Amino acid sequence: MPRFIKDRSKAKGEAPGSLIFIGNQKLDTPLIHLIQYNTEGLNEYDFDTIEEAFQAIRPGMVNWINVDGIHDSELLQKIGQLFSLPQLLLEDFINTDQYPRYEPGENYDALILKMIQQTDNSLLINAEQLSMVLGEHFILTLQEQPGDVFTPIRHRIRKQKGRLRSKNADYLAYALLDAVVENYNNLIENFGRRVEDIDDIIFQNNGNNLVSTIYKLKTELNFLRKSIRPFRDVAAQLLKSEETFFEPDNKQYLADLHGEVHQAIENIEFYMSLLSDQLNTHHTNIQNRQNEVMKVLTVFASIFIPLTFLAGIYGMNFKYFPELNYQFSYPAFWLASLSIVTVLLLYFKRKKWL
Amino acid sequence: MPRFIKDRSKAKGEAPGSLIFIGNQKLDTPLIHLIQYNTEGLNEYDFDTIEEAFQAIRPGMVNWINVDGIHDSELLQKIGQLFSLPQLLLEDFINTDQYPRYEPGENYDALILKMIQQTDNSLLINAEQLSMVLGEHFILTLQEQPGDVFTPIRHRIRKQKGRLRSKNADYLAYALLDAVVENYNNLIENFGRRVEDIDDIIFQNNGNNLVSTIYKLKTELNFLRKSIRPFRDVAAQLLKSEETFFEPDNKQYLADLHGEVHQAIENIEFYMSLLSDQLNTHHTNIQNRQNEVMKVLTVFASIFIPLTFLAGIYGMNFKYFPELNYQFSYPAFWLASLSIVTVLLLYFKRKKWL
Amino acid sequence: MPRFIKDRSKAKGEAPGSLIFIGNQKLDTPLIHLIQYNTEGLNEYDFDTIEEAFQAIRPGMVNWINVDGIHDSELLQKIGQLFSLPQLLLEDFINTDQYPRYEPGENYDALILKMIQQTDNSLLINAEQLSMVLGEHFILTLQEQPGDVFTPIRHRIRKQKGRLRSKNADYLAYALLDAVVENYNNLIENFGRRVEDIDDIIFQNNGNNLVSTIYKLKTELNFLRKSIRPFRDVAAQLLKSEETFFEPDNKQYLADLHGEVHQAIENIEFYMSLLSDQLNTHHTNIQNRQNEVMKVLTVFASIFIPLTFLAGIYGMNFKYFPELNYQFSYPAFWLASLSIVTVLLLYFKRKKWL
Amino acid sequence: MPRFIKDRSKAKGEAPGSLIFIGNQKLDTPLIHLIQYNTEGLNEYDFDTIEEAFQAIRPGMVNWINVDGIHDSELLQKIGQLFSLPQLLLEDFINTDQYPRYEPGENYDALILKMIQQTDNSLLINAEQLSMVLGEHFILTLQEQPGDVFTPIRHRIRKQKGRLRSKNADYLAYALLDAVVENYNNLIENFGRRVEDIDDIIFQNNGNNLVSTIYKLKTELNFLRKSIRPFRDVAAQLLKSEETFFEPDNKQYLADLHGEVHQAIENIEFYMSLLSDQLNTHHTNIQNRQNEVMKVLTVFASIFIPLTFLAGIYGMNFKYFPELNYQFSYPAFWLASLSIVTVLLLYFKRKKWL
Amino acid sequence: MPRFIKDRSKAKGEAPGSLIFIGNQKLDTPLIHLIQYNTEGLNEYDFDTIEEAFQAIRPGMVNWINVDGIHDSELLQKIGQLFSLPQLLLEDFINTDQYPRYEPGENYDALILKMIQQTDNSLLINAEQLSMVLGEHFILTLQEQPGDVFTPIRHRIRKQKGRLRSKNADYLAYALLDAVVENYNNLIENFGRRVEDIDDIIFQNNGNNLVSTIYKLKTELNFLRKSIRPFRDVAAQLLKSEETFFEPDNKQYLADLHGEVHQAIENIEFYMSLLSDQLNTHHTNIQNRQNEVMKVLTVFASIFIPLTFLAGIYGMNFKYFPELNYQFSYPAFWLASLSIVTVLLLYFKRKKWL
Repeated sequence: MPRFIKDRSKAKGEAPGSLIFIGNQKLDTPLIHLIQYNTEGLNEYDFDTIEEAFQAIRPGMVNWINVDGIHDSELLQKIGQLFSLPQLLLEDFINTDQYPRYEPGENYDALILKMIQQTDNSLLINAEQLSMVLGEHFILTLQEQPGDVFTPIRHRIRKQKGRLRSKNADYLAYALLDAVVENYNNLIENFGRRVEDIDDIIFQNNGNNLVSTIYKLKTELNFLRKSIRPFRDVAAQLLKSEETFFEPDNKQYLADLHGEVHQAIENIEFYMSLLSDQLNTHHTNIQNRQNEVMKVLTVFASIFIPLTFLAGIYGMNFKYFPELNYQFSYPAFWLASLSIVTVLLLYFKRKKWL
Repeated sequence: MPRFIKDRSKAKGEAPGSLIFIGNQKLDTPLIHLIQYNTEGLNEYDFDTIEEAFQAIRPGMVNWINVDGIHDSELLQKIGQLFSLPQLLLEDFINTDQYPRYEPGENYDALILKMIQQTDNSLLINAEQLSMVLGEHFILTLQEQPGDVFTPIRHRIRKQKGRLRSKNADYLAYALLDAVVENYNNLIENFGRRVEDIDDIIFQNNGNNLVSTIYKLKTELNFLRKSIRPFRDVAAQLLKSEETFFEPDNKQYLADLHGEVHQAIENIEFYMSLLSDQLNTHHTNIQNRQNEVMKVLTVFASIFIPLTFLAGIYGMNFKYFPELNYQFSYPAFWLASLSIVTVLLLYFKRKKWL
Repeated sequence: MPRFIKDRSKAKGEAPGSLIFIGNQKLDTPLIHLIQYNTEGLNEYDFDTIEEAFQAIRPGMVNWINVDGIHDSELLQKIGQLFSLPQLLLEDFINTDQYPRYEPGENYDALILKMIQQTDNSLLINAEQLSMVLGEHFILTLQEQPGDVFTPIRHRIRKQKGRLRSKNADYLAYALLDAVVENYNNLIENFGRRVEDIDDIIFQNNGNNLVSTIYKLKTELNFLRKSIRPFRDVAAQLLKSEETFFEPDNKQYLADLHGEVHQAIENIEFYMSLLSDQLNTHHTNIQNRQNEVMKVLTVFASIFIPLTFLAGIYGMNFKYFPELNYQFSYPAFWLASLSIVTVLLLYFKRKKWL
Repeated sequence: MPRFIKDRSKAKGEAPGSLIFIGNQKLDTPLIHLIQYNTEGLNEYDFDTIEEAFQAIRPGMVNWINVDGIHDSELLQKIGQLFSLPQLLLEDFINTDQYPRYEPGENYDALILKMIQQTDNSLLINAEQLSMVLGEHFILTLQEQPGDVFTPIRHRIRKQKGRLRSKNADYLAYALLDAVVENYNNLIENFGRRVEDIDDIIFQNNGNNLVSTIYKLKTELNFLRKSIRPFRDVAAQLLKSEETFFEPDNKQYLADLHGEVHQAIENIEFYMSLLSDQLNTHHTNIQNRQNEVMKVLTVFASIFIPLTFLAGIYGMNFKYFPELNYQFSYPAFWLASLSIVTVLLLYFKRKKWL
Repeated sequence: MPRFIKDRSKAKGEAPGSLIFIGNQKLDTPLIHLIQYNTEGLNEYDFDTIEEAFQAIRPGMVNWINVDGIHDSELLQKIGQLFSLPQLLLEDFINTDQYPRYEPGENYDALILKMIQQTDNSLLINAEQLSMVLGEHFILTLQEQPGDVFTPIRHRIRKQKGRLRSKNADYLAYALLDAVVENYNNLIENFGRRVEDIDDIIFQNNGNNLVSTIYKLKTELNFLRKSIRPFRDVAAQLLKSEETFFEPDNKQYLADLHGEVHQAIENIEFYMSLLSDQLNTHHTNIQNRQNEVMKVLTVFASIFIPLTFLAGIYGMNFKYFPELNYQFSYPAFWLASLSIVTVLLLYFKRKKWL
């Protein structure tokens, strides 16, 4: 099953704007969660239907509705109606192999991003599509499945840490984006550490599964780059846009975000180029070692094959074979053998094979 | 016969604007089909001549004339007269190795694209030129041969699914373009699945026709990229153009299309770079395995060649050969042999060849 | 002798604007030919001097003066005086290793291009500089030597085929440029066919001169790309220029030309990248085959070398050698040999070398 | 432990603007140093607290406050309050894996750069983040640890060498930036010298740790490029900015700086491409030498293996073996052997293996 | 000693604007030469001091002061005072590892370029910094050492060849730049000829020092590209600049120069890419040849090693060894041997190793 691309077969030939989920359905019922806060207070609710969540929105507060599991096209249809989102945007939300982008609307800012997750401590990463709608009082986040990188943000809201509680919805949106990018950077750091670890073993003989490690790291970094790169343009567009819901005062945060994404991509490129160099270096090392092996074989074979021939001669059973009867034939044989060995050793020495 | 480029020899030296078909003629008589619809009704006709089709166009409806088989220059000439298209555009339609592009005219928007088809489930793909003329009430599509990616669209028109029946000709044009791009994405997904499958066997020993698979996938993806890449510019031009027949309300669809093509190209690049890494990795693997083979050969040969020499010595038939007559010569021979073997095994152990 | 670059030594240290021919002089006397036409009539003349040709120009007609052999600096000086061309432009005409470019003047448009020719059916191509001056009533084309790609155009003028006879000089200029580009495309098609032919033999064993073919094709395509690439900018400048002699009505032709050149360059890039993949694939194939060879050698040697040692032992002539006298020694030897062979065969089987 | 990327784990999940130091704390107490000068006088102080340093600033003089050791978030918080710096900027200062950039503020210009240091004469380099705040009368520099590239500047201030004492704070800022870039260039020169040294040994047989040297140099240059490249944009932004604290008169210095950084990056690219060529060349050399080894082995084995077989034949003990009893069998054996050797030598000679 | 980069150690830590020469001093006393001309007359002088040269400048003439040997910082200081040049520019002149650039001033145009020289006919090239100051009546050229590419220009001035004597100082500046570029082109032609020569021997067996030649050519071309590339931007800036001392009438010469530099860089890229292809091709050739060697070894060894074993068997001295006594054992042995050889030959034939 492909890991880097979603199976579109279910959506084949459907009209544009048809809401067909093309990911792997991992949740039976979508989870709808609302966090509602301002400087004074904080409410948290779990809802069964999106209508209830929509009615619970209070204008004086920041309302963050998070939906885990967006495979249900009816749910998405209702979201579209409640939040007045165009059909095409809904399709982009449910079709989870979208190019990360920023879609400004009249009464909302829509963002489509990739949230990366790493299962356990393995190298393999998975990209989950995160859709975000920012309105005046609310943020709507849509995820393919439960589990995200926003736990610290929920924690900060609940514990009143940082500026979140005293800021508006657009600052929460920035905080969410920042969490996504911070997650990118942590992943890159993990990969980077493994890439740098290779330096310690690349010139050792027992670098057995080096090729496999290099290949896997490069594949994942390649995929990571594909997932992150469009975000740089998204951040740049948000920075320049004048009709966004991000308040001008908070533009500095977006600038910082842009710098972070830039640095992330630079780091990926750096490590990918390191991995390429490592593979080339390893390849040349293997070649070098093969040369060593070949030299040993050649020296052994070239010395003993002539000697064996010499011994073979005097093992022949010819009736008329004068040398066999000389008294000093045997010592002479050893003398000849030693001379051959000496000459060949000198020859190989001169060739620097010894 | 070249598959990636059309044979231009027939058109050599002809005046610009001469209508010489340079593809492979696959149809005796062109097929002319008209689908005519609006919210209320739907008519479908097959015509023998393009004049009949032209006369059947009704202004209050969306008229989609599709022509399969454009090798007939007379037919194209008539199309030019009926729809007031310039000679040079007609030449671009019939000369089916054109660079995909957007040609705005006074009373039409002309688009030249590549429609990709994959025969059976083989890897090989073929690009067919699709020419499209969008006027106020009609769309004219010209194909090289029957068989296209528009079956689901015809189905949606007939069954009144989606928005098609309630929208104008420009929306149909978008739907057709969307079908072409969706087809690209399906192909990329197919290729991508095969590329990712290679990961499962690349570190196995029996990756016999790996090189061949990698090469073929890369060639097809390369060709696909060449066919798709110019479409990105076409979509961008359509988006920016102010004199196009695409209504401003439908620009969002074009934006979505642009994003889809962008994603398609990114995916191709990703898989091509994966294939390159796979070839490099496989190459290093082969080298590694050769090293293994060499070590086995070297160890065997280096151990037994000296021993054989030793045995050869005592096989000699010299008359004066004192060792032959000692009582413990034979056990001494074994002792010497075992010592040699031990020393060499230790030597190879230290070199980590065992 | 260099084929891809002209010998500049003759022009070393000369003042800018000095007219020193740096190509290989291939013609003793320049050939001066005038074709003069309009809708009504057609005249053709061969002249000995450029003055005569200049005087024969008739304002009401399209006058195409073609000069083959521009090594004569006096001739060029006269051309400069007659057509009022600046000295530096003349130098660019005679110095035939110029970067293709468009030089607009007050009373002319000057173009410098590369016309590619392929000797026989060999792979080798040659670039000849084609200089073109477009005035209001005339076109002046300067070639290094006789033989060009304009035969079909002359034919169309004479036979009144196409639009040429009814159009002005700027259309003729376009037709000439179109012929040059069509020639590029035909060459690329020829090369492309050969590149695709390689696919049929790359996985066969007897791909003996594959490396040589790939290298030669890549070199020629590389040179072709260098010669064509600047033309894309030239076409784009012509398209944008507002002070050119190309009439606005004919701009569509230039747009078409631009598309053709673009496609040509894309095709070259495609085939060059295919050739690179082919070389890499072939390299890995060779490596693979070497592995096969190595395995056969290793299996043979590793099996028979120990056996030969065994046989050598019992060929020794020790006096006290108990095994030699046992009745079942010989069958035991065979048993031991067969056991060794079996064990080794199983070992190599498990390693998948068999 | 990763050398090319900082450990972000301490800052994971913290609110943006939280001051968490992510480098390796190398200093217990930060060192705060103030140099205060104008044309007339010079004062130098060491302070324990940043408040004292702030109070010591005198408007009529250039005040350069340098802080070594910025792991203390309280200190940074105080700096923020005293110099009115936004929280996000402070975070960028303490989070020492930032993308080098220029952040203009209302009452300051902030710059984040990488200062490179090389421990001893080893190849390994380390990047330390240098943060700089330029106000009207003061410069604040923040370093991760003691030891910097500014010693010559302090010397020039103290000894009244150069223009420093007669210029304003912005000139000091330029001088500091210039020192950072000069340090880059010195490092590149060091690396370049080592890269060029490789040319002397690359075609010698004993290039044993060539691969390792090439790999290490390339890794360091790669890292250097990553650290320097963004500085080019920073310098360009400073040049264009109209609201910077750099006086227009001093813009020429910034232009010069921009040129220097540009040259530095070009030099890095040049040496990296040289190193790539060296690795490829070395790889082909190894291959060449292996070919030599193989030829020697093949010639030896191919000559003596048939001869040994021949000797083996006449060592057989068949009862009925006519050749054994002929008188000239032994000389005939030698004749046959010599013939075989001669034929094979000629064969290998023709193949140019000798 | 590094050849591609200048030793900056002497200038380490100096204040910006300090005049420290970082090249290799090759001249004891600077040579100061003045050529003074207009249409009527010509004067030439050698001076000991720059003051004398400055006083000899005559407004009605073109005054070209050339200084060979700029290691003397006092001299440069005086030049700065006499011609009112800023300190930073003087530093760029004496620090001879500058990025080629154009520095417009109020009363001058300053240019820094690389002049390339090739010692003898060796491959190695050296870049010398050429600084040029163009004022209204004068040109000042500063070179590191005697010997330049301007001999033909001096000749043309003296012999009144070309336009030089009738034109102003800006035309002389153009002529000097043109000589520098022409020298580039001659060098590229030299290198190109050598690159193309490789084509003749790359498929021959005795391409012994091919790798070394390819590597050296690529290194020099790489260095040449680094030295020339910035000149393209310099020429483009001169073309666009409106405040330059180049008169608008002479802009056509600058355009021509820009085209020449462009062509030079294209040619370098072309040859570098050819060299890369040559190295790859050569590498694959070596691999191919190694395959040949391996096949010969394998065929010889695989055929004779089993036969030797066979002969070894019948050389054993077992007492009970029935075959030894059969009458037809010896012919049977030969039959078996021939069968083995035949089978193996057929096997290798089928594998296409023969």
